[in-house]
Amino acid sequence: MSERLADIGVLGLGTMGANLALNMAEKGFVVAGSNRTAEKAYALRDDNGAVGQNIVPTDSIEQFVATLKTPRLIVFMVPAGPIVDEEMQRIMPLLSPGDIMIDAGNADFNDTVRRSKAIADTPFHFVGMGVSGGELGARHGPSIMVGGEEQVYSLLSKILEPISAKYQGTPCVAWLGPDGAGHFVKTIHNGIEYADMQMIAEIYGILRDGLGLSAGEMSDIFADWNSRGLSSYLIEITAVNLAEKDPDSGKPLVDVIADEAGQKGTGRWSAIEAQKLGVGATTIEAAVSARGISSRRKERAATAALYGSVAGVRGDFHPDKDGLKELEQALETAKIIAYAQGFAVLSAASEERGWNLPLGEIARIWRAGCIIRSQFLDDITRAYEASGPAANLLHAPQFVERVKAGETALRRVVAKAALAGIPMPALAAALSYFDDYRRARGTTNLTQAQRDLFGAHTFHRLDQEGVFHHQWPAV
Amino acid sequence: MSERLADIGVLGLGTMGANLALNMAEKGFVVAGSNRTAEKAYALRDDNGAVGQNIVPTDSIEQFVATLKTPRLIVFMVPAGPIVDEEMQRIMPLLSPGDIMIDAGNADFNDTVRRSKAIADTPFHFVGMGVSGGELGARHGPSIMVGGEEQVYSLLSKILEPISAKYQGTPCVAWLGPDGAGHFVKTIHNGIEYADMQMIAEIYGILRDGLGLSAGEMSDIFADWNSRGLSSYLIEITAVNLAEKDPDSGKPLVDVIADEAGQKGTGRWSAIEAQKLGVGATTIEAAVSARGISSRRKERAATAALYGSVAGVRGDFHPDKDGLKELEQALETAKIIAYAQGFAVLSAASEERGWNLPLGEIARIWRAGCIIRSQFLDDITRAYEASGPAANLLHAPQFVERVKAGETALRRVVAKAALAGIPMPALAAALSYFDDYRRARGTTNLTQAQRDLFGAHTFHRLDQEGVFHHQWPAV
Repeated sequence: MSERLADIGVLGLGTMGANLALNMAEKGFVVAGSNRTAEKAYALRDDNGAVGQNIVPTDSIEQFVATLKTPRLIVFMVPAGPIVDEEMQRIMPLLSPGDIMIDAGNADFNDTVRRSKAIADTPFHFVGMGVSGGELGARHGPSIMVGGEEQVYSLLSKILEPISAKYQGTPCVAWLGPDGAGHFVKTIHNGIEYADMQMIAEIYGILRDGLGLSAGEMSDIFADWNSRGLSSYLIEITAVNLAEKDPDSGKPLVDVIADEAGQKGTGRWSAIEAQKLGVGATTIEAAVSARGISSRRKERAATAALYGSVAGVRGDFHPDKDGLKELEQALETAKIIAYAQGFAVLSAASEERGWNLPLGEIARIWRAGCIIRSQFLDDITRAYEASGPAANLLHAPQFVERVKAGETALRRVVAKAALAGIPMPALAAALSYFDDYRRARGTTNLTQAQRDLFGAHTFHRLDQEGVFHHQWPAV
Repeated sequence: MSERLADIGVLGLGTMGANLALNMAEKGFVVAGSNRTAEKAYALRDDNGAVGQNIVPTDSIEQFVATLKTPRLIVFMVPAGPIVDEEMQRIMPLLSPGDIMIDAGNADFNDTVRRSKAIADTPFHFVGMGVSGGELGARHGPSIMVGGEEQVYSLLSKILEPISAKYQGTPCVAWLGPDGAGHFVKTIHNGIEYADMQMIAEIYGILRDGLGLSAGEMSDIFADWNSRGLSSYLIEITAVNLAEKDPDSGKPLVDVIADEAGQKGTGRWSAIEAQKLGVGATTIEAAVSARGISSRRKERAATAALYGSVAGVRGDFHPDKDGLKELEQALETAKIIAYAQGFAVLSAASEERGWNLPLGEIARIWRAGCIIRSQFLDDITRAYEASGPAANLLHAPQFVERVKAGETALRRVVAKAALAGIPMPALAAALSYFDDYRRARGTTNLTQAQRDLFGAHTFHRLDQEGVFHHQWPAV
């Protein structure tokens, strides 16, 4: 055991925990490591050269706690759920007043709210921290979304800023609000990520099934799109994914990968929280649902057999310059709408919970380190800087212009895909949301008439204040 | 106080409870009534003529319990939530072994599962019962969805069958499964109701904004549609709603009703439960979200001002016979798909919770009494009778033919609405679901490639068994 006291401790040295510990060690911090099997902590020190020398492996939870400078900073990187509670219970008897426990896992923010409340009766502090960017992000610079007490953050930032991703030199980490704010923002980040990926998959479906392009041809198209408004990590890797050959068969690798998408909890949680808030995050919902449908591959094959094949190149799509431009514009426009939905969810949650979420700051720390990182998030940052927290991103002047320029392309792509039988659940959801949200006079006046007839639910009138019930004819 | 012992007791005499008590009394059962303000119980007896003579008002919970034959049947008709728990705690010390508590409110089925578990440690029984049909249904014949212990149902059916709605003489009540099964089915019923109403509202939007028809003209169209495949209570009342004049202004009443739809919890719950189950109930989700969007009327007006008006008759819609037939077919086809989604949610829940839900039976008891009652549900009943619980209603031969006949109309309506700027979130969600569900080769192979690149999430292959990870080029 080293005699050195550690600046911070990481409890749980799976891939994410180990990478976060190495990231901190590389930035010069002394990091105590604790793991149920202590060998992992020793291997982390011994297998990582000079960086490993800043890792202090420990054999027991008591030794781990004793190794840390006070106030202690303890990062939990264990599976989300009851294990977090168990580990907190195990370590708390060993702590000193003022020590800080940081849950950096993919927690359900409702659990983070609960834990924050429970900790308020103790002399300790609790921080719920969303870490985005996967394994590579954890190792070399993630986007970090911090929730908890603001004054506690000042003790963390000296470590979190150096280890976070940088966008043009600015660290992608911020304190976002109390208790569950950090984990909630991470959840919605993942929902937006689902939407982004699904919309790319839908355009890929049109390129493949509407235009009959090869994976290599599509790779070139995405690489080209990555040089303009769509420029982003996800578009960049799409080009790489499509260019890759299967070492076994020599075919494009995407052509042998099964079309069954897995999912973890956070995408689903984002759709559920949007529903709870009464905010129509329909593009995110469509994206999460599409993964569910994709996982039922045998059922889909059975359905295809019953309805006849729609295989083969089809629809009124054209692989010329104008045709590709239309797809690019449609994707970019739908993306703006999807992000507007995601930020509307953040805004509604902020209001409901009194979090006062800094929406521009959130866009700012998503510009690098995380999966949805892009030039586009810098545009959103600037939109919030210029106009303050608008009711909806679709009201920000920069985006009004872009959506106006692109809406016709989105309309045409959705219409052609509908006629051709090419599914576009997320693109169509984005368009419908836009059309519904821009319509001063909607159609739920009929819905209200129906509800008043069958359930005396009452209605408002356009021309008079008050609540009304009508004596409808008997049906 | 009457000397008679009552067959059943109703606790909570709000509109729903009072109407259910009168329904029972009318069928010849002696019904004890209990209410926090006992005057309501007396008024129920005194204000309802001969029917009221079967009501036994009580002044206290003790008297209420003492008035009931054993085993006691006690229907709770109190607001959903903690009040149910409080009332159960209040009454349980007074009960005898074998007594049955029935929660007939709009409970969250998760609460019903919890209460069923808790009651298992007592000598009492608990039944979670969904009652559909609103106030009029409760009074004259609702659709009743019962969950709980099967042997307990035999004690209830002698009362529930006479008071339930009848479809061609058959009572619309059934035991559906243990613990939360009844309330879960009621929740999904309401989700389907949301989808049904939203799709009607979307077609109304096309008739109004695409064709420029008056409310009276539209009323005639819906009345006509009610004579064929779409025949249902909701289409019938739509015709009535559209024909009604505002007594104040003389205008069509729908034209002065505000387009802000309210909602209670169950529509939202159905979308949330679908997400939890990983079933894409996208049409229901779109419908619930559309109500949320509609409630933000000022925000919508602000958005309309920014993007310019899309008011006025527009789009490639035609009010001739073929044009109207296309809308009718589109609505009918989308409705089949929406119901298929709702039943897929029931099927998934049944599997996950081991409920063994009788899907055909569910369609059967929805044929009358409830808001979505229709000829169409009889078609679903017969589809399940003919083919057993198919994986999805879209696989049932009767529906394959109908969807094949109508899918072109749905495609054309969605495409035209997309181009015209008329929102159709639920219709488009139905079409996208169908196209996604009928596609043997989807596009989430690209999603899986992306996830494997950025998070080493692995993938399956089409040509080999196993789980694979690829070494992608560094990005």
